[in-house]
Amino acid sequence: MPIPQPIAWSPTGTVRVLDQTLLPGEERYLDLDSLAAVGEAIRALRVRGAPLIGIAAAMGIAMDAAHGDVERVRQACAFLGATRPTAVNLHWALRRMERRAETVSASGGDVARALREEAQAIWDEDRAMCDRIGELGAPLIPSGTTVCTICNAGALATGGIGTALAPIYNLQRRGKGPSVIVPETRPLLQGSRLTAWELSRAGVRCTVIADGMIASRLRRGDVGCAMVGADRIAANGDFANKVGTYALALAARAHGVPLYVLAPSSTVDLAAASGASIPIEERAAEEITVWHGQRVAADRVEVWNPAFDVTPAELVTAFVTDRGVLAPDELARTFD
Amino acid sequence: MPIPQPIAWSPTGTVRVLDQTLLPGEERYLDLDSLAAVGEAIRALRVRGAPLIGIAAAMGIAMDAAHGDVERVRQACAFLGATRPTAVNLHWALRRMERRAETVSASGGDVARALREEAQAIWDEDRAMCDRIGELGAPLIPSGTTVCTICNAGALATGGIGTALAPIYNLQRRGKGPSVIVPETRPLLQGSRLTAWELSRAGVRCTVIADGMIASRLRRGDVGCAMVGADRIAANGDFANKVGTYALALAARAHGVPLYVLAPSSTVDLAAASGASIPIEERAAEEITVWHGQRVAADRVEVWNPAFDVTPAELVTAFVTDRGVLAPDELARTFD
Repeated sequence: MPIPQPIAWSPTGTVRVLDQTLLPGEERYLDLDSLAAVGEAIRALRVRGAPLIGIAAAMGIAMDAAHGDVERVRQACAFLGATRPTAVNLHWALRRMERRAETVSASGGDVARALREEAQAIWDEDRAMCDRIGELGAPLIPSGTTVCTICNAGALATGGIGTALAPIYNLQRRGKGPSVIVPETRPLLQGSRLTAWELSRAGVRCTVIADGMIASRLRRGDVGCAMVGADRIAANGDFANKVGTYALALAARAHGVPLYVLAPSSTVDLAAASGASIPIEERAAEEITVWHGQRVAADRVEVWNPAFDVTPAELVTAFVTDRGVLAPDELARTFD
Repeated sequence: MPIPQPIAWSPTGTVRVLDQTLLPGEERYLDLDSLAAVGEAIRALRVRGAPLIGIAAAMGIAMDAAHGDVERVRQACAFLGATRPTAVNLHWALRRMERRAETVSASGGDVARALREEAQAIWDEDRAMCDRIGELGAPLIPSGTTVCTICNAGALATGGIGTALAPIYNLQRRGKGPSVIVPETRPLLQGSRLTAWELSRAGVRCTVIADGMIASRLRRGDVGCAMVGADRIAANGDFANKVGTYALALAARAHGVPLYVLAPSSTVDLAAASGASIPIEERAAEEITVWHGQRVAADRVEVWNPAFDVTPAELVTAFVTDRGVLAPDELARTFD
């Protein structure tokens, strides 16, 4: 069974994305034909997942560059860079696009064509990185065990087979796929809506639980490891990922379950010395208090809704990146 | 501002309950006029919370006893006892009603009248226990700090001012109420729907978060203690409470936050040597996969939906009961 893919060039050169806010009920693709549309799609989480945001932004810049010069590219990068603060891949991809535009423009080349190639390269490299992460991560899953993940760090979050889910797909393709514990991941349910959808589409057996059940599920003893993605990895090995990851990490440590963080190189941000330097996006209260238009929390209450949390390096067994399987203290010298 | 009360005798002698499944959108009271209606209300969680279930069941038995003999009381107790397996207060209250019926019947007394008195006594004692727990628990909250709870162990779960929330109301009445962190408590949102509702009704400041945010909220350092209820406490100090409590306990331990378990004596079950002896109710998959009739998880996925989890005694700072503030290893000799 095929693994769903969330992004494509449309025949007319616009950015085609799967609207992930409508899953699992509806599989609808949107053709984003302007920079504003790309920005809205990222901000509204129609396109989400740190690597995919970078790819979509690069494609949006390439599309927009058909209509202007390097200055327009700079403005476009600034516009998309402001959509989401935590994921570093977005800023990494935009910087790469901007530099390419500057270099090609200085040498009198075709900026629009060069940026289209650059966006395609970012996508192709991401796909290759996912495959590599899958190869490196597969041997870390003890045979016959279950893997616990959180949120969605799968095909829907990348240009390929995902990061945290890549080892699972790697094994599945060889007929040895493990089953997967999928916490629903409140408030936006990327676990039950997205991860369970793409895994079941690909024929992987999965079990959805509420986030508060993770610790008692790990206690049962049959979970071989936890595999999660990352939105930003600091130099010391602290990492930001979907809120709830830190609780999963504490539960994994309490039960001797290894915690692997799977992410492409572009997620490592050596400019952030530790997790304290990573900006954490806080989102609207209504993501928690309202559901399908119906209010589910009392009026007059306050809400705290951080989209991410930071897990300290000491809870990480290893980082699985396209540059290898690395202990937290190997990150800085590997990516320096 | 008044603390809401979830149960009453109606003027015609039926059991009047606040339908907690409709909160916070609608405050509707139901007059339960048959044993079947009481059973349905307990099973469907219209009436919930370990102490309140015991009170409602006792009132239901008293109401039904007007129409029959001791044998009918026995059958009624068996019927209500099968509604929910984890909370021990239900079974404790039913046993108490059954014994009273047998004693009064043997001496030729008025069974119906005696059972009505017994149900009232169970309720009155619960109210007094809540007050006592509030008095004992209030000094455990460091001045100027925030309290983290989970689910609803408040007025809506009892015949009085609650268990875990009783110390908060005790302080609030004296103008020193702390603010409260309220995890929403998936799948049924007893935190955001019920706890936030009753606290804000009573003028207590509260902040709703998703369950996966508890650990990162505790890391911020201003949470003085965690206060939770219990559905059953085993002889060794392991206790069952709403699923997610174990994760809260792990996070509290990681951040040096004391964990207090507040519950009436009837929650202690010395027949359960440890948490392994406590039956854990598993509920329908649709509580997780469907929301207001809309499917939120992919089709063809499995679901694990335990209503409770067990927290080991070593994570408990103290039990706050109407018999005093007790270390886990003091339970057995205190309640023997």
